[in-house]
Amino acid sequence: MDSQEFMQNDIKFMKAAIKQAALAASHGEVPIGAVIVRDGQVIARGYNKRQKTRTALMHAEVVAIERACKNLGDWRLSDCDIYVTLEPCCMCVGLIINSRIRNVYFGAPEPKSGCCGSVVNLFDTVNMNQTTRVFGGILADECSSLISDFFKKCRK
Amino acid sequence: MDSQEFMQNDIKFMKAAIKQAALAASHGEVPIGAVIVRDGQVIARGYNKRQKTRTALMHAEVVAIERACKNLGDWRLSDCDIYVTLEPCCMCVGLIINSRIRNVYFGAPEPKSGCCGSVVNLFDTVNMNQTTRVFGGILADECSSLISDFFKKCRK
Repeated sequence: MDSQEFMQNDIKFMKAAIKQAALAASHGEVPIGAVIVRDGQVIARGYNKRQKTRTALMHAEVVAIERACKNLGDWRLSDCDIYVTLEPCCMCVGLIINSRIRNVYFGAPEPKSGCCGSVVNLFDTVNMNQTTRVFGGILADECSSLISDFFKKCRK
Repeated sequence: MDSQEFMQNDIKFMKAAIKQAALAASHGEVPIGAVIVRDGQVIARGYNKRQKTRTALMHAEVVAIERACKNLGDWRLSDCDIYVTLEPCCMCVGLIINSRIRNVYFGAPEPKSGCCGSVVNLFDTVNMNQTTRVFGGILADECSSLISDFFKKCRK
């Protein structure tokens, strides 16, 4: 889907997620970022921290969702949306489902592990009790370039 | 599968996971417990902390895996096994895959959200680069009773 088709707000929030991804890169982490949005406001931000935390848990989505839950004092985020620069993996889709997030907006597709349509769409398979809408490809080139540029620099 | 078919060690480690589940119940949490085993030793334990932490993240598996990563100083748990009292959900299967855990042993099946064969087997669908073996039904009745007894008490 072309970026032009997305609403202005979706571009704005994906740009906020891209800022988080850039922060990840500046800390030597693979640049993936996410924000949680409620009532038109960013209520939590996160970037990938796998190297720093030394757990496979701390993907950008997990960091952002945890912060949103802390900020709201509730594990249910049913009136929230997530914007993330890369298509979520199985774990993150599971957490998005468990947290009851309403809409998922992602940037670049992830052909090897993306579970919002690339490998499989787990929202169709697993998400039994709710309807989460998924929109992919927002600023996809920019989100994807961040990651490929990061790995090019690592190889130098 | 009948409990008798499982190795003595598998029963022992599932009993350790059940102890964790009982701890969860004593803290008012749905009784689900997990342990991580490496070289025949329990290296990390965890129980469900959703209410306490107010995030949908803190399933027993997540708590146990995080502790194992901290104890080993590595996000890769490729020579580790997990024993968990309830069939893991989508999120936990994703984390098990991301952490490269070798074998998964679970107690009771979870017909509504279990992603190791009940709703779907995500180890077949998503786990592209590795082979995780899954064994279900170890002390299933005991694991299941813990949960049903907990909810019976809640209703009183």
